[in-house]
Amino acid sequence: MTEDRLSRQIAFVLELDALKQVLRQTLLLADRRQENDAEHSWHIAMMALLLAEHAAEPVDVGRVVKMLLIHDIVEIDAGDTFIYDEAGHADKEAREQAAADRLFGLLPADQGAELRALWDEFEARATPEARFAASIDRLQPLLHNVHTEGAAWRRHGVTADRVLARNAMIGDGAPVLWDYARRLIEQATDAGHLPLK
Amino acid sequence: MTEDRLSRQIAFVLELDALKQVLRQTLLLADRRQENDAEHSWHIAMMALLLAEHAAEPVDVGRVVKMLLIHDIVEIDAGDTFIYDEAGHADKEAREQAAADRLFGLLPADQGAELRALWDEFEARATPEARFAASIDRLQPLLHNVHTEGAAWRRHGVTADRVLARNAMIGDGAPVLWDYARRLIEQATDAGHLPLK
Repeated sequence: MTEDRLSRQIAFVLELDALKQVLRQTLLLADRRQENDAEHSWHIAMMALLLAEHAAEPVDVGRVVKMLLIHDIVEIDAGDTFIYDEAGHADKEAREQAAADRLFGLLPADQGAELRALWDEFEARATPEARFAASIDRLQPLLHNVHTEGAAWRRHGVTADRVLARNAMIGDGAPVLWDYARRLIEQATDAGHLPLK
Repeated sequence: MTEDRLSRQIAFVLELDALKQVLRQTLLLADRRQENDAEHSWHIAMMALLLAEHAAEPVDVGRVVKMLLIHDIVEIDAGDTFIYDEAGHADKEAREQAAADRLFGLLPADQGAELRALWDEFEARATPEARFAASIDRLQPLLHNVHTEGAAWRRHGVTADRVLARNAMIGDGAPVLWDYARRLIEQATDAGHLPLK
Protein backbone atom coordinates (compact mmCIF):
# COMPACT_ATOMS: atom_id res chain seq x y z
CA MET A 1 0.00 0.00 0.00
CA THR A 2 1.44 3.34 -1.00
CA GLU A 3 0.47 6.74 0.42
CA ASP A 4 -0.79 7.60 -3.02
CA ARG A 5 -3.24 4.67 -3.01
CA LEU A 6 -4.84 5.77 0.26
CA SER A 7 -4.91 9.41 -0.90
CA ARG A 8 -6.82 8.45 -4.04
CA GLN A 9 -9.27 6.37 -2.03
CA ILE A 10 -9.90 9.25 0.39
CA ALA A 11 -10.26 11.75 -2.47
CA PHE A 12 -13.03 9.56 -3.88
CA VAL A 13 -14.65 9.20 -0.44
CA LEU A 14 -14.75 13.00 -0.09
CA GLU A 15 -16.17 13.38 -3.61
CA LEU A 16 -19.01 11.00 -2.68
CA ASP A 17 -20.36 13.60 -0.25
CA ALA A 18 -21.78 15.42 -3.29
CA LEU A 19 -24.34 12.65 -3.91
CA LYS A 20 -26.17 13.93 -0.81
CA GLN A 21 -27.03 17.04 -2.81
CA VAL A 22 -28.42 15.41 -5.94
CA LEU A 23 -32.18 15.76 -5.56
CA ARG A 24 -34.72 13.32 -6.93
CA GLN A 25 -38.43 13.74 -7.69
CA THR A 26 -39.34 11.27 -4.93
CA LEU A 27 -40.74 12.87 -1.78
CA LEU A 28 -40.04 11.61 1.73
CA LEU A 29 -43.04 10.04 3.45
CA ALA A 30 -42.83 12.19 6.56
CA ASP A 31 -42.16 15.81 5.65
CA ARG A 32 -42.45 15.44 1.86
CA ARG A 33 -39.20 17.16 1.03
CA GLN A 34 -37.36 15.82 -2.03
CA GLU A 35 -35.20 12.78 -1.42
CA ASN A 36 -31.54 12.86 -2.43
CA ASP A 37 -29.52 10.13 -4.14
CA ALA A 38 -27.53 9.13 -1.05
CA GLU A 39 -30.72 8.55 0.96
CA HIS A 40 -32.28 6.66 -1.95
CA SER A 41 -29.16 4.49 -2.35
CA TRP A 42 -29.18 3.56 1.34
CA HIS A 43 -32.90 2.81 1.28
CA ILE A 44 -32.72 0.49 -1.74
CA ALA A 45 -29.62 -1.29 -0.40
CA MET A 46 -31.70 -2.08 2.71
CA MET A 47 -34.62 -3.17 0.52
CA ALA A 48 -32.36 -5.57 -1.39
CA LEU A 49 -31.25 -7.14 1.89
CA LEU A 50 -34.82 -7.51 3.08
CA LEU A 51 -36.52 -8.60 -0.14
CA ALA A 52 -33.89 -10.84 -1.79
CA GLU A 53 -36.08 -13.91 -1.30
CA HIS A 54 -38.47 -12.44 -3.88
CA ALA A 55 -35.87 -12.28 -6.68
CA ALA A 56 -36.87 -14.09 -9.88
CA GLU A 57 -33.68 -16.16 -9.73
CA PRO A 58 -31.27 -16.83 -6.86
CA VAL A 59 -29.00 -13.79 -6.46
CA ASP A 60 -25.75 -12.98 -4.66
CA VAL A 61 -27.26 -10.38 -2.32
CA GLY A 62 -23.87 -8.86 -1.49
CA ARG A 63 -23.32 -8.05 -5.17
CA VAL A 64 -26.82 -6.58 -5.48
CA VAL A 65 -26.20 -4.35 -2.46
CA LYS A 66 -22.85 -3.18 -3.82
CA MET A 67 -24.44 -2.46 -7.21
CA LEU A 68 -27.20 -0.40 -5.59
CA LEU A 69 -24.77 1.51 -3.37
CA ILE A 70 -22.81 2.67 -6.43
CA HIS A 71 -25.52 2.83 -9.11
CA ASP A 72 -26.24 6.55 -8.79
CA ILE A 73 -22.71 7.84 -8.19
CA VAL A 74 -22.52 9.02 -11.81
CA GLU A 75 -25.33 11.46 -10.98
CA ILE A 76 -22.83 13.57 -9.01
CA ASP A 77 -21.85 14.91 -12.45
CA ALA A 78 -24.79 13.87 -14.63
CA GLY A 79 -27.67 14.81 -12.31
CA ASP A 80 -30.80 12.77 -11.71
CA THR A 81 -33.04 12.11 -14.71
CA PHE A 82 -36.69 11.69 -13.72
CA ILE A 83 -38.02 8.36 -14.95
CA TYR A 84 -40.85 10.09 -16.86
CA ASP A 85 -38.62 12.80 -18.42
CA GLU A 86 -38.29 11.61 -22.01
CA ALA A 87 -36.22 14.58 -23.21
CA GLY A 88 -33.79 14.07 -20.32
CA HIS A 89 -33.37 10.43 -21.30
CA ALA A 90 -32.19 11.34 -24.82
CA ASP A 91 -28.67 12.30 -23.69
CA LYS A 92 -28.67 10.49 -20.34
CA GLU A 93 -26.29 7.76 -21.43
CA ALA A 94 -23.66 10.11 -22.84
CA ARG A 95 -23.76 12.29 -19.69
CA GLU A 96 -23.46 9.29 -17.43
CA GLN A 97 -20.62 7.66 -19.36
CA ALA A 98 -18.57 10.86 -19.09
CA ALA A 99 -19.37 11.03 -15.38
CA ALA A 100 -18.29 7.41 -14.86
CA ASP A 101 -14.97 8.12 -16.61
CA ARG A 102 -14.20 11.05 -14.34
CA LEU A 103 -15.52 9.72 -11.04
CA PHE A 104 -14.32 6.11 -11.11
CA GLY A 105 -11.08 7.50 -12.57
CA LEU A 106 -10.36 9.16 -9.21
CA LEU A 107 -9.78 5.73 -7.62
CA PRO A 108 -6.71 3.49 -7.84
CA ALA A 109 -6.98 1.77 -11.23
CA ASP A 110 -7.98 -1.69 -9.93
CA GLN A 111 -10.79 -0.31 -7.78
CA GLY A 112 -11.98 2.12 -10.44
CA ALA A 113 -12.19 -0.72 -12.96
CA GLU A 114 -14.06 -2.94 -10.51
CA LEU A 115 -16.71 -0.31 -9.72
CA ARG A 116 -17.04 0.64 -13.38
CA ALA A 117 -17.63 -3.01 -14.33
CA LEU A 118 -20.26 -3.33 -11.62
CA TRP A 119 -22.00 -0.15 -12.80
CA ASP A 120 -21.89 -1.37 -16.42
CA GLU A 121 -23.43 -4.65 -15.24
CA PHE A 122 -26.22 -2.75 -13.48
CA GLU A 123 -26.92 -0.66 -16.56
CA ALA A 124 -26.98 -3.68 -18.92
CA ARG A 125 -29.52 -5.62 -16.79
CA ALA A 126 -28.21 -8.88 -18.24
CA THR A 127 -27.51 -10.77 -14.98
CA PRO A 128 -29.96 -11.91 -12.27
CA GLU A 129 -28.29 -9.50 -9.82
CA ALA A 130 -28.65 -6.52 -12.17
CA ARG A 131 -32.28 -7.35 -12.94
CA PHE A 132 -33.17 -7.68 -9.27
CA ALA A 133 -31.28 -4.45 -8.47
CA ALA A 134 -33.26 -2.65 -11.20
CA SER A 135 -36.53 -3.98 -9.74
CA ILE A 136 -35.70 -2.59 -6.31
CA ASP A 137 -34.52 0.72 -7.77
CA ARG A 138 -37.94 1.13 -9.43
CA LEU A 139 -40.05 -0.20 -6.57
CA GLN A 140 -38.81 2.28 -3.95
CA PRO A 141 -39.99 5.51 -5.68
CA LEU A 142 -43.26 3.77 -6.54
CA LEU A 143 -43.80 2.95 -2.85
CA HIS A 144 -43.09 6.57 -1.96
CA ASN A 145 -45.52 7.82 -4.56
CA VAL A 146 -48.28 5.51 -3.39
CA HIS A 147 -47.75 6.51 0.24
CA THR A 148 -47.74 10.26 -0.48
CA GLU A 149 -51.06 10.15 -2.36
CA GLY A 150 -49.23 10.22 -5.68
CA ALA A 151 -47.54 13.54 -4.92
CA ALA A 152 -44.68 13.29 -7.45
CA TRP A 153 -46.95 11.73 -10.11
CA ARG A 154 -49.48 14.53 -9.76
CA ARG A 155 -46.80 17.22 -9.77
CA HIS A 156 -45.60 15.95 -13.15
CA GLY A 157 -48.97 14.93 -14.64
CA VAL A 158 -47.99 11.26 -14.85
CA THR A 159 -50.74 8.77 -15.70
CA ALA A 160 -51.27 5.11 -14.78
CA ASP A 161 -50.49 3.80 -18.27
CA ARG A 162 -47.03 5.39 -18.10
CA VAL A 163 -46.42 4.16 -14.56
CA LEU A 164 -47.28 0.62 -15.68
CA ALA A 165 -45.12 0.85 -18.81
CA ARG A 166 -42.05 2.35 -17.11
CA ASN A 167 -42.13 -0.02 -14.14
CA ALA A 168 -43.01 -3.31 -15.82
CA MET A 169 -39.33 -4.28 -15.61
CA ILE A 170 -39.88 -4.80 -11.87
CA GLY A 171 -41.43 -8.09 -13.00
CA ASP A 172 -38.23 -9.21 -14.75
CA GLY A 173 -36.25 -9.17 -11.52
CA ALA A 174 -38.98 -9.91 -9.00
CA PRO A 175 -42.41 -11.10 -10.24
CA VAL A 176 -43.87 -11.21 -6.71
CA LEU A 177 -42.92 -7.58 -6.14
CA TRP A 178 -44.39 -6.54 -9.49
CA ASP A 179 -47.70 -8.24 -8.60
CA TYR A 180 -47.63 -6.33 -5.34
CA ALA A 181 -46.75 -3.05 -7.09
CA ARG A 182 -49.54 -3.48 -9.64
CA ARG A 183 -52.07 -3.82 -6.85
CA LEU A 184 -50.72 -0.59 -5.31
CA ILE A 185 -51.00 1.20 -8.66
CA GLU A 186 -54.62 0.04 -8.97
CA GLN A 187 -55.38 1.25 -5.47
CA ALA A 188 -53.80 4.62 -6.29
CA THR A 189 -55.96 5.03 -9.39
CA ASP A 190 -59.08 3.93 -7.47
CA ALA A 191 -58.28 6.49 -4.77
CA GLY A 192 -57.93 9.26 -7.38
CA HIS A 193 -54.17 9.76 -6.80
CA LEU A 194 -53.16 8.63 -10.27
CA PRO A 195 -55.27 9.44 -13.37
CA LEU A 196 -55.77 6.49 -15.73
CA LYS A 197 -54.44 8.41 -18.75
CA MET B 1 -44.17 -16.87 1.26
CA THR B 2 -47.37 -15.54 2.76
CA GLU B 3 -48.98 -12.18 2.09
CA ASP B 4 -48.35 -11.36 5.71
CA ARG B 5 -44.60 -11.89 5.34
CA LEU B 6 -44.35 -9.42 2.45
CA SER B 7 -46.61 -6.94 4.27
CA ARG B 8 -44.32 -6.98 7.31
CA GLN B 9 -41.25 -6.51 5.12
CA ILE B 10 -42.83 -3.54 3.34
CA ALA B 11 -44.00 -2.01 6.64
CA PHE B 12 -40.38 -2.06 7.80
CA VAL B 13 -39.18 -0.61 4.48
CA LEU B 14 -41.62 2.29 4.87
CA GLU B 15 -40.54 2.83 8.48
CA LEU B 16 -36.91 3.14 7.33
CA ASP B 17 -37.78 6.39 5.54
CA ALA B 18 -37.69 8.07 8.96
CA LEU B 19 -33.90 7.60 9.23
CA LYS B 20 -33.57 10.32 6.57
CA GLN B 21 -34.82 12.79 9.16
CA VAL B 22 -32.49 11.92 12.03
CA LEU B 23 -29.93 14.70 11.99
CA ARG B 24 -26.30 14.32 13.05
CA GLN B 25 -23.75 16.91 14.13
CA THR B 26 -21.62 16.22 11.04
CA LEU B 27 -21.85 18.90 8.35
CA LEU B 28 -21.79 18.19 4.63
CA LEU B 29 -18.65 19.33 2.86
CA ALA B 30 -20.43 21.35 0.19
CA ASP B 31 -23.23 23.39 1.73
CA ARG B 32 -22.51 22.59 5.38
CA ARG B 33 -26.02 21.57 6.29
CA GLN B 34 -26.32 18.79 8.91
CA GLU B 35 -25.99 15.27 7.59
CA ASN B 36 -28.72 12.75 8.34
CA ASP B 37 -28.33 9.12 9.35
CA ALA B 38 -29.40 7.65 5.99
CA GLU B 39 -26.76 9.69 4.14
CA HIS B 40 -24.15 8.79 6.75
CA SER B 41 -25.04 5.09 6.51
CA TRP B 42 -24.68 5.11 2.73
CA HIS B 43 -21.38 6.99 2.90
CA ILE B 44 -19.78 4.62 5.41
CA ALA B 45 -21.03 1.53 3.54
CA MET B 46 -19.18 2.90 0.50
CA MET B 47 -16.11 3.60 2.64
CA ALA B 48 -16.10 0.01 3.91
CA LEU B 49 -16.14 -1.27 0.31
CA LEU B 50 -13.30 1.04 -0.67
CA LEU B 51 -11.08 0.75 2.41
CA ALA B 52 -11.47 -2.92 3.40
CA GLU B 53 -7.84 -3.66 2.49
CA HIS B 54 -6.82 -1.49 5.48
CA ALA B 55 -8.69 -3.60 8.05
CA ALA B 56 -6.53 -4.88 10.92
CA GLU B 57 -7.57 -8.45 10.15
CA PRO B 58 -9.16 -9.98 7.05
CA VAL B 59 -12.88 -9.17 7.07
CA ASP B 60 -15.98 -10.36 5.22
CA VAL B 61 -16.74 -7.04 3.54
CA GLY B 62 -20.33 -7.98 2.77
CA ARG B 63 -21.01 -8.46 6.48
CA VAL B 64 -19.31 -5.15 7.31
CA VAL B 65 -21.46 -3.35 4.73
CA LYS B 66 -24.64 -4.93 6.05
CA MET B 67 -23.69 -4.01 9.62
CA LEU B 68 -23.07 -0.39 8.62
CA LEU B 69 -26.31 -0.16 6.64
CA ILE B 70 -28.32 -1.18 9.71
CA HIS B 71 -26.19 0.21 12.55
CA ASP B 72 -28.11 3.47 12.99
CA ILE B 73 -31.67 2.20 12.40
CA VAL B 74 -32.33 2.26 16.16
CA GLU B 75 -31.86 6.05 16.00
CA ILE B 76 -35.27 6.31 14.29
CA ASP B 77 -36.64 6.01 17.83
CA ALA B 78 -33.59 6.76 19.98
CA GLY B 79 -32.20 9.78 18.10
CA ASP B 80 -28.54 10.46 17.35
CA THR B 81 -26.22 10.87 20.32
CA PHE B 82 -23.28 13.15 19.53
CA ILE B 83 -20.01 11.34 20.21
CA TYR B 84 -18.87 14.11 22.61
CA ASP B 85 -22.21 14.33 24.48
CA GLU B 86 -21.43 12.56 27.76
CA ALA B 87 -24.85 13.15 29.33
CA GLY B 88 -26.55 11.73 26.23
CA HIS B 89 -24.41 8.62 26.47
CA ALA B 90 -25.65 7.83 30.01
CA ASP B 91 -29.01 6.46 28.84
CA LYS B 92 -28.07 5.76 25.20
CA GLU B 93 -27.99 2.00 25.60
CA ALA B 94 -31.41 1.73 27.24
CA ARG B 95 -32.98 3.98 24.58
CA GLU B 96 -31.39 2.02 21.77
CA GLN B 97 -32.32 -1.40 23.15
CA ALA B 98 -35.99 -0.36 23.34
CA ALA B 99 -35.76 0.99 19.80
CA ALA B 100 -34.23 -2.26 18.52
CA ASP B 101 -37.06 -4.24 20.14
CA ARG B 102 -39.73 -2.18 18.41
CA LEU B 103 -38.10 -1.67 15.02
CA PHE B 104 -36.64 -5.11 14.32
CA GLY B 105 -39.88 -6.50 15.78
CA LEU B 106 -41.74 -5.12 12.75
CA LEU B 107 -40.06 -7.70 10.52
CA PRO B 108 -40.88 -11.40 10.08
CA ALA B 109 -39.30 -13.11 13.11
CA ASP B 110 -36.37 -14.74 11.25
CA GLN B 111 -35.31 -11.49 9.60
CA GLY B 112 -35.82 -9.44 12.76
CA ALA B 113 -33.62 -11.85 14.71
CA GLU B 114 -30.93 -11.78 12.03
CA LEU B 115 -30.72 -7.98 11.93
CA ARG B 116 -30.84 -7.75 15.72
CA ALA B 117 -27.94 -10.22 16.01
CA LEU B 118 -25.95 -8.21 13.48
CA TRP B 119 -26.64 -4.97 15.34
CA ASP B 120 -25.66 -6.61 18.66
CA GLU B 121 -22.43 -7.78 17.01
CA PHE B 122 -21.70 -4.23 15.83
CA GLU B 123 -22.32 -2.82 19.29
CA ALA B 124 -20.14 -5.44 21.03
CA ARG B 125 -17.11 -4.81 18.76
CA ALA B 126 -15.84 -8.32 19.50
CA THR B 127 -15.38 -9.54 15.89
CA PRO B 128 -12.97 -8.26 13.18
CA GLU B 129 -15.99 -7.13 11.12
CA ALA B 130 -17.49 -5.15 14.01
CA ARG B 131 -14.16 -3.53 14.87
CA PHE B 132 -13.56 -2.50 11.27
CA ALA B 133 -17.14 -1.22 10.97
CA ALA B 134 -16.63 0.88 14.10
CA SER B 135 -13.41 2.33 12.67
CA ILE B 136 -15.18 3.44 9.52
CA ASP B 137 -18.14 4.83 11.47
CA ARG B 138 -15.72 7.05 13.42
CA LEU B 139 -13.48 7.99 10.52
CA GLN B 140 -16.22 9.49 8.35
CA PRO B 141 -17.32 12.30 10.72
CA LEU B 142 -13.67 13.00 11.47
CA LEU B 143 -12.97 13.45 7.75
CA HIS B 144 -15.95 15.80 7.50
CA ASN B 145 -14.75 17.82 10.46
CA VAL B 146 -11.25 18.17 9.07
CA HIS B 147 -12.57 19.22 5.66
CA THR B 148 -14.97 21.83 7.08
CA GLU B 149 -12.25 23.58 9.14
CA GLY B 150 -13.45 21.79 12.27
CA ALA B 151 -16.96 23.26 12.03
CA ALA B 152 -18.76 20.73 14.27
CA TRP B 153 -15.84 20.57 16.73
CA ARG B 154 -15.80 24.34 17.09
CA ARG B 155 -19.57 24.57 17.42
CA HIS B 156 -19.40 22.21 20.41
CA GLY B 157 -16.10 23.39 21.92
CA VAL B 158 -14.42 20.03 21.37
CA THR B 159 -10.65 19.85 21.93
CA ALA B 160 -7.92 17.70 20.37
CA ASP B 161 -7.40 15.56 23.49
CA ARG B 162 -11.07 14.48 23.37
CA VAL B 163 -10.95 13.85 19.63
CA LEU B 164 -7.91 11.62 20.12
CA ALA B 165 -9.47 9.78 23.08
CA ARG B 166 -12.88 9.19 21.48
CA ASN B 167 -11.48 8.07 18.13
CA ALA B 168 -8.54 5.92 19.21
CA MET B 169 -10.68 2.85 18.56
CA ILE B 170 -10.20 3.52 14.84
CA GLY B 171 -6.79 1.92 15.44
CA ASP B 172 -8.35 -1.33 16.71
CA GLY B 173 -10.08 -1.99 13.42
CA ALA B 174 -7.73 -0.26 11.00
CA PRO B 175 -4.28 0.88 12.22
CA VAL B 176 -3.36 2.42 8.85
CA LEU B 177 -6.50 4.57 8.91
CA TRP B 178 -5.83 5.66 12.49
CA ASP B 179 -2.29 6.75 11.53
CA TYR B 180 -3.84 8.72 8.70
CA ALA B 181 -6.53 10.21 10.97
CA ARG B 182 -3.97 11.25 13.59
CA ARG B 183 -2.05 13.18 10.96
CA LEU B 184 -5.27 14.94 9.98
CA ILE B 185 -6.01 15.81 13.62
CA GLU B 186 -2.50 17.26 13.96
CA GLN B 187 -2.97 19.32 10.84
CA ALA B 188 -6.31 20.58 12.15
CA THR B 189 -4.72 21.73 15.43
CA ASP B 190 -1.80 23.31 13.54
CA ALA B 191 -4.28 25.18 11.33
CA GLY B 192 -6.17 26.47 14.38
CA HIS B 193 -9.34 24.50 13.63
CA LEU B 194 -9.13 22.35 16.77
CA PRO B 195 -7.86 23.73 20.10
CA LEU B 196 -5.37 21.45 21.89
CA LYS B 197 -7.45 21.35 25.11
